[in-house]
Amino acid sequence: MNIITIMLDKKSSTPLFEQIYSHIKFEILNGNYIFNTKLPSKRKLADHLKCSQNTVQAAYNQLVSEGYLVSKQRSGYYVCKLDGILNISNKKNTKINSNSDKSKYKYHFSYHGVDLENFPFITWRRINRDSINEFDQDFFKAGHPQGLYELRESICHYLRSSRSVKCIPEQIIISSGTELILQLLIQAFNESSVFGLENPGYERLSLLFKSNNRQYKAIPLDKDGMILSSLERSAADIISITPSHQFPTGNIMPINRRIQLLNWANQSPNRYIIEDDYDSEFKYSGKPIPSLQGLDNYGKVIYIGSFSKSLSPSMRISYAVLPQELLNEYKENLNFYICPVPYLEQKILHTFISEGYFERHLNKMRNIYKKKREALVLAIKELLPNADISGENAGLHIILNPNNGLTETELVLRAKLKGVKVNALSQYYINKDTRPSETQLLLGFASLSEKEIYKAVNLLYDAWL
Amino acid sequence: MNIITIMLDKKSSTPLFEQIYSHIKFEILNGNYIFNTKLPSKRKLADHLKCSQNTVQAAYNQLVSEGYLVSKQRSGYYVCKLDGILNISNKKNTKINSNSDKSKYKYHFSYHGVDLENFPFITWRRINRDSINEFDQDFFKAGHPQGLYELRESICHYLRSSRSVKCIPEQIIISSGTELILQLLIQAFNESSVFGLENPGYERLSLLFKSNNRQYKAIPLDKDGMILSSLERSAADIISITPSHQFPTGNIMPINRRIQLLNWANQSPNRYIIEDDYDSEFKYSGKPIPSLQGLDNYGKVIYIGSFSKSLSPSMRISYAVLPQELLNEYKENLNFYICPVPYLEQKILHTFISEGYFERHLNKMRNIYKKKREALVLAIKELLPNADISGENAGLHIILNPNNGLTETELVLRAKLKGVKVNALSQYYINKDTRPSETQLLLGFASLSEKEIYKAVNLLYDAWL
Repeated sequence: MNIITIMLDKKSSTPLFEQIYSHIKFEILNGNYIFNTKLPSKRKLADHLKCSQNTVQAAYNQLVSEGYLVSKQRSGYYVCKLDGILNISNKKNTKINSNSDKSKYKYHFSYHGVDLENFPFITWRRINRDSINEFDQDFFKAGHPQGLYELRESICHYLRSSRSVKCIPEQIIISSGTELILQLLIQAFNESSVFGLENPGYERLSLLFKSNNRQYKAIPLDKDGMILSSLERSAADIISITPSHQFPTGNIMPINRRIQLLNWANQSPNRYIIEDDYDSEFKYSGKPIPSLQGLDNYGKVIYIGSFSKSLSPSMRISYAVLPQELLNEYKENLNFYICPVPYLEQKILHTFISEGYFERHLNKMRNIYKKKREALVLAIKELLPNADISGENAGLHIILNPNNGLTETELVLRAKLKGVKVNALSQYYINKDTRPSETQLLLGFASLSEKEIYKAVNLLYDAWL
Repeated sequence: MNIITIMLDKKSSTPLFEQIYSHIKFEILNGNYIFNTKLPSKRKLADHLKCSQNTVQAAYNQLVSEGYLVSKQRSGYYVCKLDGILNISNKKNTKINSNSDKSKYKYHFSYHGVDLENFPFITWRRINRDSINEFDQDFFKAGHPQGLYELRESICHYLRSSRSVKCIPEQIIISSGTELILQLLIQAFNESSVFGLENPGYERLSLLFKSNNRQYKAIPLDKDGMILSSLERSAADIISITPSHQFPTGNIMPINRRIQLLNWANQSPNRYIIEDDYDSEFKYSGKPIPSLQGLDNYGKVIYIGSFSKSLSPSMRISYAVLPQELLNEYKENLNFYICPVPYLEQKILHTFISEGYFERHLNKMRNIYKKKREALVLAIKELLPNADISGENAGLHIILNPNNGLTETELVLRAKLKGVKVNALSQYYINKDTRPSETQLLLGFASLSEKEIYKAVNLLYDAWL
């Protein structure tokens, strides 16, 4: 090739060498400069384009490093062989629509929410500031796969004193949210394991097992928890339960069912119990119910918890306490996963717990949630006197049966028309055919103020008239 | 039962009701109070223990709520039936040893590390402070499963301008680290998919596929990347590659191999290419090599990246750009996973990028790493004149062959005795039998200063004499 004519725009913010590079690249990709074509020498092209030889050199170098040209010693630059020319039409990617399904509810009885007004922002900001430290070289490292040791110590201390969990920091694995902790457990267990899930239960669980191609069975519940005979029949090896405050029914598992389940687990080396203590921090009368894990002497219970209810779901910090055998399995096969929680976040949380702020925050929130719960129960008793309430002794949601002859669907729909979101209990059943005939709604109260709770129940009264 | 004698310690910090509760609970669990035993009335027990009836009432209430006692109306409190008594011996859990395998290296040519001295702490601290905002209600929500929209916009803008990636924010999924992004992709692809991995390659990859029970094949490389004929023979559907700076060899994939691989992918609807652009921010001469994804017009390339090299591995922020078809799959089956990155971290990073600090930081670091790389190359040329260096045009590591007759094992061991950690290339081979006879070491230089680099190479000189 004798010469290349390129319209260089010397006023453009794109450097000249890049304009030359782009032009030649485009021509090669379009098949206009074929294999083994010799390009003009640097001097010749520079003269022709009225630019410096260095500019042409930079363009040629870039084309060489990307493999468009090859430089042959004492000969010059040649076009490389490209196998099949790509279609580089400007065909746009199919338009991908953003999903802007913003809800238009005035009040949402969400069970994911937390209180919006009493977070200790000043303390949090101070600990944040103090945690970002020029001399802290851990800031530049991925850290221990199980998470920051100090944070594991703080969590351990909290779990031992507040939840009667038997543990040491070496048993704790920190992760981002309950799903990722469960994801890790799924991988730690044998592929042929069958998981038994509470039915009704947390709706993401079955999705999680399904998307991991793991077998799971829905185990029906009575008021005490999983029905043992159904569990035995199900052939499940590993069950996931919420004994402190069953999700969604709100029931607390009594000691006898706990013992039955522990005995069930002890009958086979493959059997395990995953205890999800998701909102155990909040119990409104008496002492908190001790964890199931604390009763277990045979390494059969995996305790999991998170800070989503006690601090905020946006923090994405969860943890598991693994029994020895699973810990070995984890260390052997799974500790290549880097702990997904940012170092800074772990450091801040550690300080927050170890300096006593977490306990203070919990005590404060327990009172605040207690009042919200009372406001909700009172408003229901006043405005919906026929309604039944259950599951109200703990946690951040209650179960309501309005007893007014309307179906769940009608209740949810009518509430929606008044701008109030309530959740039908039937949606937490894994199989549609196991849904009960009872009419029950789940009402989370954490993110509403006492005033809002009253107004929202008032709207429900209007809606269900 | 007539009466219960408990030694109450009125000076203890444990409340009296709790001492009574614990005593009764212990006796029931040990089988000393059997099923249907009637407990003393509140008045009787309170008289006997010299405490108030309220104290006994509180203890009894707690035992009822945990299911140890049942209250029968107008009759009193009775011990519940417990199925099989648990062994509640004080047998300790098997001692779990902490692993304190702290390395004793003076200098570590780590390829995970980043520079320790030039992070913009002042800016980071200010953005942190400003991001923690009492009026920001998103702080209390789990957020969008794909991550904060504003951060996805910032990443998109960066990828389009700096990496020639074609994308819109709706295609981006934010996660915690490359493993978790890959974990999501593994679940998005058909279970029967066969993954093709670069051999040698990033050592965590094969562990990841293995622990997910997915089939994978090791595909050998030549200097341009995966060998096409081997890829064809392997029956792999989805390949994971590092075209900008192959890990670990450091080679840059030329345009022709890129086109060949894109054409390979276009031959079947099941074929995809995962482009891991892990340290593409750092190229030391010419322009950065544009991404492979930018060449793809058929939705065959999944682009993944992270901030582990450009900011810090402790931040755990990674992302994927999904083509339309996989995005649909993700939305249908996988968006129940909550984005694992804390909201605050996402918000801070968004501000850092959108206010131009990220680009400034990259430009600064590119110069700093360029100097470190030069220092390393110079030191090697001075002290180890026979050595060959490759892969030095980009990224944060180089490949060294000392050409001194020593084996990789000897080189690593002798360096260790001098307090220097270097990595044998053979450890990045998936199957042991595919390891080459060549002697090659991987030397990451990011976390060492120029002075340390010189001292470390000096020690290598001593070590390999």
